[in-house]
Amino acid sequence: MAATSLEGLIAEHGGNPVDILRNSKIGMYVYPVVAPEFSNWRSEQNAWRDSAVLFDQSHHMDEVIVEGPQATEFLAYHGINAFGNFDLNRAKHYVPVTPAGHVIGDHIIFREREDKYILVGRAPTSNWLMFAASYGKWNVRLRYDPRSPSRPEGERVLREHYRFQIQGPEAGKIFEKMNGGPIPDIKFFHVDWINIGSKKVQALRHGMSGAPGLEIWGPYKDKDYIHSTIMQAARDAGVNLVQCGSRAYSTNTLESGWIPSPLPGIYTGDGMTKAFREWVGVDMYESAGAIGGSFVSDNIEDYYVNPFEIGYDFYIGWKKDDFVGKAALEKIKAEGPKRKKVTFEWNRDDVLKVIASSFEQGTPYKWIDFPQPNYASSSADMVCKEDGTMVGMSMFNGYSFNERCLLSLGVVSTDVQIGDVLTLKWGEPETTGKTSTEPHKQADIRVRVSPTPYSAEARTNYADSWRTRS
Amino acid sequence: MAATSLEGLIAEHGGNPVDILRNSKIGMYVYPVVAPEFSNWRSEQNAWRDSAVLFDQSHHMDEVIVEGPQATEFLAYHGINAFGNFDLNRAKHYVPVTPAGHVIGDHIIFREREDKYILVGRAPTSNWLMFAASYGKWNVRLRYDPRSPSRPEGERVLREHYRFQIQGPEAGKIFEKMNGGPIPDIKFFHVDWINIGSKKVQALRHGMSGAPGLEIWGPYKDKDYIHSTIMQAARDAGVNLVQCGSRAYSTNTLESGWIPSPLPGIYTGDGMTKAFREWVGVDMYESAGAIGGSFVSDNIEDYYVNPFEIGYDFYIGWKKDDFVGKAALEKIKAEGPKRKKVTFEWNRDDVLKVIASSFEQGTPYKWIDFPQPNYASSSADMVCKEDGTMVGMSMFNGYSFNERCLLSLGVVSTDVQIGDVLTLKWGEPETTGKTSTEPHKQADIRVRVSPTPYSAEARTNYADSWRTRS
Repeated sequence: MAATSLEGLIAEHGGNPVDILRNSKIGMYVYPVVAPEFSNWRSEQNAWRDSAVLFDQSHHMDEVIVEGPQATEFLAYHGINAFGNFDLNRAKHYVPVTPAGHVIGDHIIFREREDKYILVGRAPTSNWLMFAASYGKWNVRLRYDPRSPSRPEGERVLREHYRFQIQGPEAGKIFEKMNGGPIPDIKFFHVDWINIGSKKVQALRHGMSGAPGLEIWGPYKDKDYIHSTIMQAARDAGVNLVQCGSRAYSTNTLESGWIPSPLPGIYTGDGMTKAFREWVGVDMYESAGAIGGSFVSDNIEDYYVNPFEIGYDFYIGWKKDDFVGKAALEKIKAEGPKRKKVTFEWNRDDVLKVIASSFEQGTPYKWIDFPQPNYASSSADMVCKEDGTMVGMSMFNGYSFNERCLLSLGVVSTDVQIGDVLTLKWGEPETTGKTSTEPHKQADIRVRVSPTPYSAEARTNYADSWRTRS
Repeated sequence: MAATSLEGLIAEHGGNPVDILRNSKIGMYVYPVVAPEFSNWRSEQNAWRDSAVLFDQSHHMDEVIVEGPQATEFLAYHGINAFGNFDLNRAKHYVPVTPAGHVIGDHIIFREREDKYILVGRAPTSNWLMFAASYGKWNVRLRYDPRSPSRPEGERVLREHYRFQIQGPEAGKIFEKMNGGPIPDIKFFHVDWINIGSKKVQALRHGMSGAPGLEIWGPYKDKDYIHSTIMQAARDAGVNLVQCGSRAYSTNTLESGWIPSPLPGIYTGDGMTKAFREWVGVDMYESAGAIGGSFVSDNIEDYYVNPFEIGYDFYIGWKKDDFVGKAALEKIKAEGPKRKKVTFEWNRDDVLKVIASSFEQGTPYKWIDFPQPNYASSSADMVCKEDGTMVGMSMFNGYSFNERCLLSLGVVSTDVQIGDVLTLKWGEPETTGKTSTEPHKQADIRVRVSPTPYSAEARTNYADSWRTRS
């Protein structure tokens, strides 16, 4: 009988989940429904740097609503975050880990009422929470609104909520015009109400590159009204508000430094993690998703990260009596972190060498698609020292027209220094079952280790010499 | 009062339609609704060369149904094609021209009954025919089903018909499996009926790169059934049938040599053409579409082509008593054609120079988007001799992973020879109002003049040396 759970699927594959994920046929991880481009992806990227950009985030994220008498206890127990300061109308970057302390994923969590939270983000966190509610004994109610289909092909797509973000140096002028006067002074990651036309709308203060930004949401049926009102407010304010399509969208994180897609650390471990794998169906993200990249290990734990490694350790609510993973995180803390998050700045000449191979006969290097070269749900490319020792893993790639270079986010050994030049192995060593990649050979691309977020300081100090000379 | 017709719009712009179209804000001309990629655009391109590809053509074309006692006379009068041999269950490549002999556009036309035709293609031909029915006195009934919206953003999209094409060297095995036995021996551009599952479906014999291919269509409500049945037949036949997404789709014409987007020659001329411009609304293709490229002329007629120049002269039904444009075409024929259709093969090193500029500070060359660098409804790039004399116009661009090079289709003076090396001016000389392009500077890209269709002969004779050396 064919497997019906992730645990069964892994058993079918000789206990090697890497083999399953590296050969997944699910295709690209796409940002669905939203048009690929409204103007063009270069100008759309430029808008968040120089004017204002409108992100339509209504479709690419799961939403989970957690309500009930034990909503707070349930969420506090399954996330690493401190909850003591979690007032109403506040948001957090919520991170659950496994009992072994491996990151599962992350969501943005909004507290709407004493006993009601909305969580927004990728599937691994949604799935873990839905499982947790059935695994433990919790007096909570969960509602789940999954992300939109990747390829709706003309079918109608509906969500619970629309969700827009307006970001960029000119965004403030639009808010004021929209609100019919100055908007409340909302603190970072706090929520307040603003007017958009005739509607009162919830707004989260967000930020990208330090510029003012708001995320707003409401019932999906209001989407067209809100969208039209925003666009009109921008015209009235004389601001060039650029709508961002799906091609540019996912690259905004390269400049801000958030890694969207760590592999959830749920493929190993007993107890709760094993029970989760027995709960996860074979068509769900954890079973059907893909790993892409040059890093191949038979031990799937080599793909995991912990909160310290990707900069989430300051979220940890150490004062909480207990939460899933607390003991493991204490141990990791005591031992000291082994890796840290960085930005890799790709060498221009090596990138051009890769591109040039697609203008020659024979097997080319792996095509670098612009602006988003990722070809799996989770990317894992080897980053090595000159002697070939692997010292890091690149986890999310993209081209920035603002920076005029390819960047990627990932982790390196703590002894690697900002400014070090390492080598990223681009492309997979063998042909896999993935449909998202063409046959190719591997290339070495030099990368310079840079801070996260990739800052102006890094750029001025060495960027020009690095980019224009090899 | 704001203009309500194309004629009024041109008057508002001082009689210069080029100015209107080069500053259009309509954005890219996209292939809507269909997902950008199903696997990846390289493998999708490769499928039509090496295995089999499934094109979903349900959304990007207008459909016009022409019925009634005078359907044949009406269509024969407004197209250049011979109609004497237009039997039932046959298709033609239908081309209308203006009274001055300029190409308006083209459709594929199917004869379904003695008094019923279905036409499929871009808007200029649809609009011209709908106008013609109201301009003359014709006993015909027209029904119009416009192409799907470019950016439906999750709204439901419906058409009259689904339309699929299956092409490639392995396609025949799928047809046989689908039909439950050998399919009828359908001649090129003839139509017959085949079985797909429990349904009888009309099939047009089509071809690309000489491989067998069929185009099938039927009521839109059957789309999912037909799609699933085709995919299952491919699996049963052991054929790797690759679904083609919107990014790869438009590049298939580079290898086969059809120019999809000549500018309709309707912006000048009196009589019927002027009446057409008074009929065309300001939101229609002819008013709202865009011209993109380095060729800028105040005389919009410089963007037109005639049927001789793009290889349609052998369609002309000279024996017909009369048809719109006949006298003008006779004159052009007597004078001898001045231009001919060719493929331009872009120089690899010059292309890489353009790409490299997007890894440097300052204003880059115009980004070449892959695989489809077009940024307007109609492209017009100057192609010049070494001394700067313009000798050709490049009209449709794209990268072919099969050929490992950028190609474009266009016209050159008849004295230009296959193998000549010319220079394509890439990018626009000034910033226009178009949203589809980022600020850029112009580049010179050497191009080698090659036959159309871009054939194996051309490749073997000189391609390798040209591509890998400058």
